[in-house]
Amino acid sequence: MSFNTFGRVFRFTTWGESHGPALGAVVDGCPPGLALTEAGIQPWLDKRRPGQSRFTTQRREPDEVRILSGIFEGRTTGTPISLMIENVDQRSKDYSEVAKAYRPGHADYAYDAKYGFRDYRGGGRSSARETAARVAAGGVARLVVPGVRIRAWVEAVGGDAIDPAAFDDAEIDRNAFFCPDAAAAQRWEQRIDAARKAGSSLGAIVACEATGVPAGWGAPLYAKLDSELAAACMSINAVKGVEIGDGFAAAALTGEENADAMRPGNGGPRFLANHAGGIAGGISTGQPLRLRVAFKPTSSILTPVETITRDGEASEIMTRGRHDPCVGIRGVPVVEAMVALVLADQALLHRAQCG
Amino acid sequence: MSFNTFGRVFRFTTWGESHGPALGAVVDGCPPGLALTEAGIQPWLDKRRPGQSRFTTQRREPDEVRILSGIFEGRTTGTPISLMIENVDQRSKDYSEVAKAYRPGHADYAYDAKYGFRDYRGGGRSSARETAARVAAGGVARLVVPGVRIRAWVEAVGGDAIDPAAFDDAEIDRNAFFCPDAAAAQRWEQRIDAARKAGSSLGAIVACEATGVPAGWGAPLYAKLDSELAAACMSINAVKGVEIGDGFAAAALTGEENADAMRPGNGGPRFLANHAGGIAGGISTGQPLRLRVAFKPTSSILTPVETITRDGEASEIMTRGRHDPCVGIRGVPVVEAMVALVLADQALLHRAQCG
Amino acid sequence: MSFNTFGRVFRFTTWGESHGPALGAVVDGCPPGLALTEAGIQPWLDKRRPGQSRFTTQRREPDEVRILSGIFEGRTTGTPISLMIENVDQRSKDYSEVAKAYRPGHADYAYDAKYGFRDYRGGGRSSARETAARVAAGGVARLVVPGVRIRAWVEAVGGDAIDPAAFDDAEIDRNAFFCPDAAAAQRWEQRIDAARKAGSSLGAIVACEATGVPAGWGAPLYAKLDSELAAACMSINAVKGVEIGDGFAAAALTGEENADAMRPGNGGPRFLANHAGGIAGGISTGQPLRLRVAFKPTSSILTPVETITRDGEASEIMTRGRHDPCVGIRGVPVVEAMVALVLADQALLHRAQCG
Amino acid sequence: MSFNTFGRVFRFTTWGESHGPALGAVVDGCPPGLALTEAGIQPWLDKRRPGQSRFTTQRREPDEVRILSGIFEGRTTGTPISLMIENVDQRSKDYSEVAKAYRPGHADYAYDAKYGFRDYRGGGRSSARETAARVAAGGVARLVVPGVRIRAWVEAVGGDAIDPAAFDDAEIDRNAFFCPDAAAAQRWEQRIDAARKAGSSLGAIVACEATGVPAGWGAPLYAKLDSELAAACMSINAVKGVEIGDGFAAAALTGEENADAMRPGNGGPRFLANHAGGIAGGISTGQPLRLRVAFKPTSSILTPVETITRDGEASEIMTRGRHDPCVGIRGVPVVEAMVALVLADQALLHRAQCG
Repeated sequence: MSFNTFGRVFRFTTWGESHGPALGAVVDGCPPGLALTEAGIQPWLDKRRPGQSRFTTQRREPDEVRILSGIFEGRTTGTPISLMIENVDQRSKDYSEVAKAYRPGHADYAYDAKYGFRDYRGGGRSSARETAARVAAGGVARLVVPGVRIRAWVEAVGGDAIDPAAFDDAEIDRNAFFCPDAAAAQRWEQRIDAARKAGSSLGAIVACEATGVPAGWGAPLYAKLDSELAAACMSINAVKGVEIGDGFAAAALTGEENADAMRPGNGGPRFLANHAGGIAGGISTGQPLRLRVAFKPTSSILTPVETITRDGEASEIMTRGRHDPCVGIRGVPVVEAMVALVLADQALLHRAQCG
Repeated sequence: MSFNTFGRVFRFTTWGESHGPALGAVVDGCPPGLALTEAGIQPWLDKRRPGQSRFTTQRREPDEVRILSGIFEGRTTGTPISLMIENVDQRSKDYSEVAKAYRPGHADYAYDAKYGFRDYRGGGRSSARETAARVAAGGVARLVVPGVRIRAWVEAVGGDAIDPAAFDDAEIDRNAFFCPDAAAAQRWEQRIDAARKAGSSLGAIVACEATGVPAGWGAPLYAKLDSELAAACMSINAVKGVEIGDGFAAAALTGEENADAMRPGNGGPRFLANHAGGIAGGISTGQPLRLRVAFKPTSSILTPVETITRDGEASEIMTRGRHDPCVGIRGVPVVEAMVALVLADQALLHRAQCG
Repeated sequence: MSFNTFGRVFRFTTWGESHGPALGAVVDGCPPGLALTEAGIQPWLDKRRPGQSRFTTQRREPDEVRILSGIFEGRTTGTPISLMIENVDQRSKDYSEVAKAYRPGHADYAYDAKYGFRDYRGGGRSSARETAARVAAGGVARLVVPGVRIRAWVEAVGGDAIDPAAFDDAEIDRNAFFCPDAAAAQRWEQRIDAARKAGSSLGAIVACEATGVPAGWGAPLYAKLDSELAAACMSINAVKGVEIGDGFAAAALTGEENADAMRPGNGGPRFLANHAGGIAGGISTGQPLRLRVAFKPTSSILTPVETITRDGEASEIMTRGRHDPCVGIRGVPVVEAMVALVLADQALLHRAQCG
Repeated sequence: MSFNTFGRVFRFTTWGESHGPALGAVVDGCPPGLALTEAGIQPWLDKRRPGQSRFTTQRREPDEVRILSGIFEGRTTGTPISLMIENVDQRSKDYSEVAKAYRPGHADYAYDAKYGFRDYRGGGRSSARETAARVAAGGVARLVVPGVRIRAWVEAVGGDAIDPAAFDDAEIDRNAFFCPDAAAAQRWEQRIDAARKAGSSLGAIVACEATGVPAGWGAPLYAKLDSELAAACMSINAVKGVEIGDGFAAAALTGEENADAMRPGNGGPRFLANHAGGIAGGISTGQPLRLRVAFKPTSSILTPVETITRDGEASEIMTRGRHDPCVGIRGVPVVEAMVALVLADQALLHRAQCG
């Protein structure tokens, strides 16, 4: 756990476990003078909060953020911003089973192999609950890039994709799935309900777009904008793939098909396409950033799976408890937060070098 | 270009442009006492070297690496290892066109937008030629993790994939495409030849497997093994997507389908599947690492494409010069190098924290 | 405030202001399995705690540390350790004077010049109160290097130095000044009392010795052990100078006088002197580390000093409030903590590269 | 040797040994568009070059710098700047003695203890020859802060100090000692000659002043300007102490004596004194930066000193070869370079956060 800090100049550090007293983030390098209040961050946390519908975990956490440092008279001072969220609903239960045996798909075995032992209560540090701290930090990051609009949604659940022609931005906030296609949302409701009742789970694909990013952000070669976004998104629990622009589909194109031709525009080129997802050579082009993130199905399922115990004995395990049947859904605000955090960092980094 | 260094403890810094006198890498943090010679690194560079078949750029570069520091009597001393490769075949040509107008899909416009001007000769710093330095550094990294075998290959060219049933490890080195399927290699030869003659280009998918990685490598949360691999691969020229294990396909599975069940094995679990690609919670599980990388088609094509000039005027451009019709092919040794560099870094980082 | 994190592999991040609700540190990269409790850290904080005698500030802070993450069943898990100390005695007072004018010697003007405005209550982030968080983090660091004994003391107050011949280790904890010379302690009591009554303040020199450091720690060239120690100590409030070994006195020696000759010893050399302070080429030699740190006199004095207001008008200011008449004294546990933090980091870094 | 990179945003990495084919630096993060040529850097190297008088080592190195990357048409492109200096005069000699036994005061024993073996030729990586790379990098750094004038000189040799009243800036470049006091320069000539003939060596104190630094540079808390300067200077070979402003002398002052009172000035305060050396709270105040650096006497002396061999046997060693009788003198351009490098980094870092 040597690197719980992310970012180069605008940086955040998170801490906390699923069943500890609290979790939090320290945001460092934030420019001074930005208007920041707890009420300004809370909506992002509310978007991610568990227990809001039957399609997410029933753990009831208010996820109220407190700002412990770094602001004075409602504005950032340039000093570290300490954000804390108390854990309220750590349900007292019997952890003996998960303490003893490894849940397949979870980090249980890997943590034990690395550290020799682990805090098994609710997954400890490997719990997706940590992403609440990222979302809070992302709320600060958004203030650093006020001209940027970051918007994520779910594009597919369990292989069932939206119809791009039916995309309706306004629809995203109207359903429990951040789904921009009303018809797909109805189908997903049934699918996720079925999965939940069957004790099963589903994977999902989250898409994200950021508009208002000027050309020139990104620090080649090893802090390229796409490289940073990939690292940021791949660090989210349950994520197994990241694409920029056309991503894997681009690998099936020819050079002609993939070219984003340009015509003269207002103060820069007007692009005729955006296969590149707004990034060339690791630097933003001024087009909308486009990326897609693959979430595996929640590993916690009610079906018994073969496993081994800490002592190496054969066993079976099924994960009782309160879990999201499709963890990708609540991944939406987390992806947004990570994109915001990368962009804030790159904005400041660009200013450092290119002033 | 503020971050041309990659890695946390085992780190490398690259420098150099396509048409400068040389390019190189400084490898820092290498353990002392490892047997290292120029001859030991050269084979990796030879694998990447241009001009070896008609399917890659015809630029003729011997790519001979020189070690300028960090070894004594054939062994690493623990001090920085400076690796240098001279540029030999920078063809003198007329760059006025590319100096004046932006090649779509290239970094030309983005670099100008960021830095105000650019070294346009052969793409300057944004040229894939820089990856020679990575491959040299990767040769050092392999010495740090001697028990690990890293093997990449091309899995698809222009949407034409290998037959997994025909996978033959020995075949990979027998054709010009790092293709493990002899029949696919024959098809690709025709496709790439056709693309080359048409002045077109093709995308590709590169797969990579690393065996011999022990359980426990990876530094959650923001230097997770998968996150580092994603950053490393996404930083390679022309890459637009990265998957770990089943990647995007996992998003269509159920929790039962995606579970990597375990049975007692020798000194650890025996996994019944490897959907996770050998990583859980950002930490290696002891299974083979599996990842896939999407390369877009080479942006340099002989078809004229609409663009604008530096002055914002409408124009057309087609990229003459010597280019790979399918840049993904020579991406194979680069992906291997980046995986080696990440693993060397994580191996040392794990030793730092967990002894 | 972009870099409130210190360390390479074992790292800590501090946050908090003098008059905010709390302050704290996040310790990252700590090895797993170490026995850690709040009671284990508290004694270091108690040593630094204000209000213990009339020779330090009368602010009454219990400085009770809470551990919010990173431990399970009394042992470190390898995840980030969040340490929090609540501010209890932020006395409600009238800050209008210090809000309006700059206190000479303080960071007031510099912070305003940098950030445009500042949290002026008690110095905000520039208050020495932040060092409580370092001391807490230092308590964790000590667990990482259990074989090392770190011991600091005050060597001079206001130019009045101890008699080296009278040095008595046991005396250090017997007086309010961490003074190893009983006679000097008596003199200092009078001097500091006089300064306190006169509303004046005194500088001090703190010396520190670390024994049990094995040969080989330090990461040349830019994370040399002495370089890291210098950075660590110079980052402490009011510090204006750092010496390793003989320091400035070495500049007056000849090569013969300064040579630390060696004879065969047990498992290494037996050194006949330690002018070098235990470090050569930036690497520990196995001798005791020796360093000295100069603290300027507390800038808060009751004598009016010429200054300017925020609006650039001429003014006068004198600093009422509760302050240490000799801030160097409470610097003792802070220097110890910083040395512990550097050594923990270097110990892990050495293990990373040299196994 | 895990950290041969210095800096946060404007960063440089050095490589190379005393007797390898070359040494160099990679400067990363330099803003684009700065006029940079080899001829522009060379004067700084010439100032440090050995063999210029009988008071420095007789090794004859032209120290001609080559720029291998990062410039185009005479201007920086924003990409890494690779600087290389060939080693020309590595005298072929018999190293068997120094290979076998440890020279007291040198890094020989410490390197062996850390790495298990070492490149003993001329001190390998621990040789002060590495500072040539820093001076070259410093030449680039100066371009980043064109309004800053950095000036160092020797203040004392072997305990014999200049007369502050005789300080003459113009004198510094008129003698072989960077001495601003003509009378002192004459005395030093005799002292150093005597030391050289006796096979002895002398320590020195180097002072440095930087004017033109605006208020506001410095990144509290752990990249404070004074902390970075201390780290930078302490990383120079043979340095044992660093002071900012009054340094250790401040520890003997009262708060009244140490206060830098302010009066209204032009666009900021006019300070009545500069005890602080231009830094408060880790941030520049707009006053001249003042610092002092203590160099120990050269460890290479012709007097035999007791030591042990690699096998732990008692032995004696005296260091033949070509050495500076007072290494502090050539430290002057190195201190200047390190100050320039810190200021360039902090200038960009300040721009990142505070725009």
